Amino acid sequence: MSSKVSPLAPTNVPTLPELAGVRLATAAAGIRYKNRTDVLLVALDPGTSVAGVFTTSKCPSAPVEWCRDNLKGGTARVLVVNSGNANAFTGKTGRKATTLTASIAAKATGCKPAEVFLASTGVIGEPLDATKFEGVLGTLAETAQPGGWLDAAKAIMTTDTFPKVATKTVKLGKAKVTINGMAKGAGMIAPDMATMLSFIFTDAPLSASCLQALLKAGVADTFNAVTIDGDTSTSDTLLAFATGAAAKNGAPKISRASDPRLTAFVKAFNAVLADLAEQVARDGEGARKLVEIIVDGAVSKASARKIALSIANSPLVKTAIAGEDANWGRVVMAVGKAGEPADRDKLSIAFNGIRVAKAGARDPSYDEKEVSAAMKQPEIQIKVGLGLGKGRDRVLTCDLTKEYVAINGDYRS
Amino acid sequence: MSSKVSPLAPTNVPTLPELAGVRLATAAAGIRYKNRTDVLLVALDPGTSVAGVFTTSKCPSAPVEWCRDNLKGGTARVLVVNSGNANAFTGKTGRKATTLTASIAAKATGCKPAEVFLASTGVIGEPLDATKFEGVLGTLAETAQPGGWLDAAKAIMTTDTFPKVATKTVKLGKAKVTINGMAKGAGMIAPDMATMLSFIFTDAPLSASCLQALLKAGVADTFNAVTIDGDTSTSDTLLAFATGAAAKNGAPKISRASDPRLTAFVKAFNAVLADLAEQVARDGEGARKLVEIIVDGAVSKASARKIALSIANSPLVKTAIAGEDANWGRVVMAVGKAGEPADRDKLSIAFNGIRVAKAGARDPSYDEKEVSAAMKQPEIQIKVGLGLGKGRDRVLTCDLTKEYVAINGDYRS
Repeated sequence: MSSKVSPLAPTNVPTLPELAGVRLATAAAGIRYKNRTDVLLVALDPGTSVAGVFTTSKCPSAPVEWCRDNLKGGTARVLVVNSGNANAFTGKTGRKATTLTASIAAKATGCKPAEVFLASTGVIGEPLDATKFEGVLGTLAETAQPGGWLDAAKAIMTTDTFPKVATKTVKLGKAKVTINGMAKGAGMIAPDMATMLSFIFTDAPLSASCLQALLKAGVADTFNAVTIDGDTSTSDTLLAFATGAAAKNGAPKISRASDPRLTAFVKAFNAVLADLAEQVARDGEGARKLVEIIVDGAVSKASARKIALSIANSPLVKTAIAGEDANWGRVVMAVGKAGEPADRDKLSIAFNGIRVAKAGARDPSYDEKEVSAAMKQPEIQIKVGLGLGKGRDRVLTCDLTKEYVAINGDYRS
Repeated sequence: MSSKVSPLAPTNVPTLPELAGVRLATAAAGIRYKNRTDVLLVALDPGTSVAGVFTTSKCPSAPVEWCRDNLKGGTARVLVVNSGNANAFTGKTGRKATTLTASIAAKATGCKPAEVFLASTGVIGEPLDATKFEGVLGTLAETAQPGGWLDAAKAIMTTDTFPKVATKTVKLGKAKVTINGMAKGAGMIAPDMATMLSFIFTDAPLSASCLQALLKAGVADTFNAVTIDGDTSTSDTLLAFATGAAAKNGAPKISRASDPRLTAFVKAFNAVLADLAEQVARDGEGARKLVEIIVDGAVSKASARKIALSIANSPLVKTAIAGEDANWGRVVMAVGKAGEPADRDKLSIAFNGIRVAKAGARDPSYDEKEVSAAMKQPEIQIKVGLGLGKGRDRVLTCDLTKEYVAINGDYRS
């Protein structure tokens, strides 16, 4: 954990309301860190639906494989998250550790191992000593409370400089339902000491398949549109839980994501995902600038996404922004290397609304001083117009600073 | 230009021999830099064949488009290279600048514009004032000499910290033929102040199509297997010229790359390409370590290449190496994100010959101290065994240091 909070951290941290059917507890199990919590247990009432999306890595961690398997059942009773050790690339030992953790958690909460969901984040390649959960999870299950969301978000941090939470309340039918979420992630994503984990909870009565469809659709323009360094963790995990407790207050039970009664809910659900995803970018390792990249005029949205990610992942674009340099030449380079349709002579580029290039050359009205002043802002928008079609997309990232190199070059040694 | 030479610079710089049919001259035209040469003219005897490979960028520079067009003719009489301005993303002005430069060069050397080849490197987006070549190129054509290869290599440098030259002499038939080469490139490749340019010359009598086939095959495991930061320049240019002058000494005229008489020549030609490509990696911006990545046991060579490049371009792997940390967890991450077939439980990883991971977990014999000592070497080899098939490949890169961020974040301002 870094001792210095990111200058891009949100200034208003919401207090998350209690959420019927969800109880939380944290503990310091001494997995790796000293003097801090490192285990989170979330107890979920019977009937809770679950959905999940995971890393696309071909070398996923043991907990990712565990969750993928259990997702088939569609119901969850307990979530256990630990920081300090990712239980990744730990071979058979890793599988044994997930099995043991799940059996301890199942016993502690009186459910089946198939209803236990697990996530681990921290060092990889080190065996996770799951016997450390013995006793701890039992106590946590007993002491779990409906509040304490911020403490929960703190317990799952690694290189994060601030806890990440978000909440929305919205009407479903005539009942009020709540969506609470938390996330951790700072490098995108070092398997060594970071990883993106996020957990979303709602009391809306949604079926597992409905929740899965909402989650899959929701991540496309939120978590999947954020990149810190283009590196993909072995452990990225996003789980969503719907306790259904709001049914008691008259919320309708919904089984299809296309149900028109869900319109307001979907908007709020996606807003929570977007809020958390942006917080991950704001906590990018060593970040001093939040960077929004908008590409329009592409031949399709998918093409715009590829170009936006090419810009967002370019070390040369990211270092230029760290240097507060409106180096549009590097943006052209990143557009060119994306391999997507682009016509140099139709390109236009703007930094924070100031157009610096158009029609394949420097904008004649380009004033270096004006742009230099704009580049000193903590939030930078790069807008690229391709002039080819109607494809548009947006990606968030951060700058690449010497601190990123220091954090990632100096950590283990 | 950096004032400090890369610690990875070769200690033995060869003196390139004269090469019949090639004359060189350099000048300080004041394109951007002060007190240094920035224009190179290479005069080529009539009958010189030419071949080229270029950036895959969708936004190539004006000189790249100029060369691509002229390559169809197959013959070259003069090469003009300038540093300080890349003439990229300069719109119609850029095309006019190439046309004017070529017409000045053609007049100076008494050839057709279609036999003029151009390359520019430096700042992009700034119009290149080609009138600066007026007079200069005429003088250069008059004073061009068969020697001065190192001066030529110096004139084309931008952020390079040392000039890059290589040479081989080999028998073709019963005649001795020479291959001389030079390159520039330090970021891979910032369009702002770097780009990969390389020029190879031989007196072997090879047809243009033969030379093109040799060049295309030769770059696959040399220049195309080197990455500094995964960024692709708008200006990358590799041209090869064969004057054919060795025919006078009895070298056979060869028109097909598959000609068995070429075996020794091809080996030497590829060695020159490999030597120059390695020098580019050794001069990677801010580099303190040369990193060789070998992937074997992949399902194919192409799959091994993709995985090797994923490792080579990972900021987290590169920063770990800068920190002298044998962080094999990040190598696993990079293997996993490549999207190629990989079985976590069959993976093995070694740093400088010391195996740190095998069969999907930490090697039990792994000694942190031994590996830590190995990581202090200036040359680091990462070997990844996938255990799936016979596909093998090798890629060169360098580490990612705070100096890289400084060079690319502080440059323009």
